[in-house]
Amino acid sequence: MATLFYTPDIGEAKTYTLNEEESRHCIKVLRLPEGTLVHLVDGEGGFYTARIQRADPKRCILEITGVEREFRKPAYKLHIAIAPTKNIDRFEWFLEKATEAGIDEITPLICARSERRTVRTDRLFKRITAAMKQSVRAYHPVLHEPVGFRDFMAEPPSARPYIAHCAPGTKTYLSGTVRAGERVLVLIGPEGDFTPEEVDLALRQGFTALSLGEARLRTETAGLAVCFEMGLLNRS
Amino acid sequence: MATLFYTPDIGEAKTYTLNEEESRHCIKVLRLPEGTLVHLVDGEGGFYTARIQRADPKRCILEITGVEREFRKPAYKLHIAIAPTKNIDRFEWFLEKATEAGIDEITPLICARSERRTVRTDRLFKRITAAMKQSVRAYHPVLHEPVGFRDFMAEPPSARPYIAHCAPGTKTYLSGTVRAGERVLVLIGPEGDFTPEEVDLALRQGFTALSLGEARLRTETAGLAVCFEMGLLNRS
Repeated sequence: MATLFYTPDIGEAKTYTLNEEESRHCIKVLRLPEGTLVHLVDGEGGFYTARIQRADPKRCILEITGVEREFRKPAYKLHIAIAPTKNIDRFEWFLEKATEAGIDEITPLICARSERRTVRTDRLFKRITAAMKQSVRAYHPVLHEPVGFRDFMAEPPSARPYIAHCAPGTKTYLSGTVRAGERVLVLIGPEGDFTPEEVDLALRQGFTALSLGEARLRTETAGLAVCFEMGLLNRS
Repeated sequence: MATLFYTPDIGEAKTYTLNEEESRHCIKVLRLPEGTLVHLVDGEGGFYTARIQRADPKRCILEITGVEREFRKPAYKLHIAIAPTKNIDRFEWFLEKATEAGIDEITPLICARSERRTVRTDRLFKRITAAMKQSVRAYHPVLHEPVGFRDFMAEPPSARPYIAHCAPGTKTYLSGTVRAGERVLVLIGPEGDFTPEEVDLALRQGFTALSLGEARLRTETAGLAVCFEMGLLNRS
C-alpha cells in the first residue's frame, strides 16, 4: 500500500503541493524519491493516485495521475451521538475504532450524568483522520461539536432514531428493524447511563429503545458494537 | 449493581474470606459495613450473593446467601488465536473488549511476521479479570501461553477453524457458514498479516479463509469484529 495523505483541499487541479509537515514526512522521513506513487484522499470519497514530481522537503509537489470517486462508498449512513467517557482515552479509542469499522457522523453528547462535559474536538479530529488513513477510507467521518442532550433532542432526527440504554423496558435489536441502506441515528449514554427523564424524552420524540444484547458494555464498547452491527446488516 | 469479586477458589463453603487486598478494598476503600450484600463470581459460571459477616479490613468474612450456576451462559464457544500487537496496549485493549463482547479462549499466536514475540500473561490475565468483573460475567476467558504458528498448527483444531487474512483469494463470512451454538476457532495475524506459507498451511489443515468485510482492520479490531459477529450470529 502506497503512502496515503489526507488532502481535503485538493480540488480539481492537476498537481497538489503537500504542506510543510507532509512534505517533510514524505521526503525526509520516508525518503521517497521523485517518481514514487502515493495516494491522496479528500475525505469525501475521492481516492487519488499521484506521482512525486518535485521531492522538495518543504514543498513536495505531486502530479495527480488518476482519481476514483466514491471509493469504497458505504452502503449506509450511521450517526452516533455518544457521551464522552470520563477517561478521554476510551473516547478517542472509540473514535479510532468506529472510523475503522465504518461511521459517518459522531456527536459528543453531554448528558445529565456525564462526568466529562467538554472535549477537544481538534485533537479528536486528528485521531479520526489517522484512523481513516490507516484503514484506507476515502470518507472522513464528521465530528460535531459537543451538544447537551436536551439541545440535541430539540432538533428533529435526520435518521431513524434509536436510544441504547440499560434500564428495563421493551427494547428492540437493530437487526430485524433496520432496512439495508437506511440512515440510522443511535444515542449512547455515559458511564452512569441516561436518566429516566432522558429516556422518556427520547421515547416521546419517537426514538426506539435499543438492545445491544445481554452483556453490560462500557460506553465506548456499546458505540463500537453499533458500528459493527450496522456493517453486518448492510454487508452484501 | 453490588460490588463484584472474582473468587475462583470459592468451592462449596458457606463462608468465604476475602484476601487482604480485597478486604482492604471492600472495607477501607468502599467502606462497606457489615450486612452489605456483595457478589462473587468463580469464573466457571457461578454467580454468588454474599453478605459481609465480619468487616475486617485484613480478613473480611462473607456469608454466602445464594448462588446461580451457569450465570448468563454463552450460547456458543469462541477461541481466537491472535498475534500480539507491537504496541501491547492495543493487545490489552483487545483482551478487555473481547471479554466484554464475549470470548472463551484466547491464544497469543507468534507468527513469522510478528514484531512482538513475548507477552506477560500474568499482566494480561489481570486485564481480562477486570473486564469480566466490569461487564458482570461469571465465566473467565481462558488465556493460553503464547505459541508459535507452526506449533499451534501441529494440534488438530478443537473447533470449526477459520483463518482471517488480507491476501486475495476465496473467502467466506462467518454468517452463513457458522451454525448457532457451534464452537469456532479464528486465527488473526500480526500487523504485516500472515505469510503466504502460513495461510497455505492453515488451508491444508482444513481452515477456512475468513473475510471480515471490505475495510482494512487493525489486528485488534479484526479480533473484536469476530467477537461481535459471533455474538450476533448466536443472539436469540
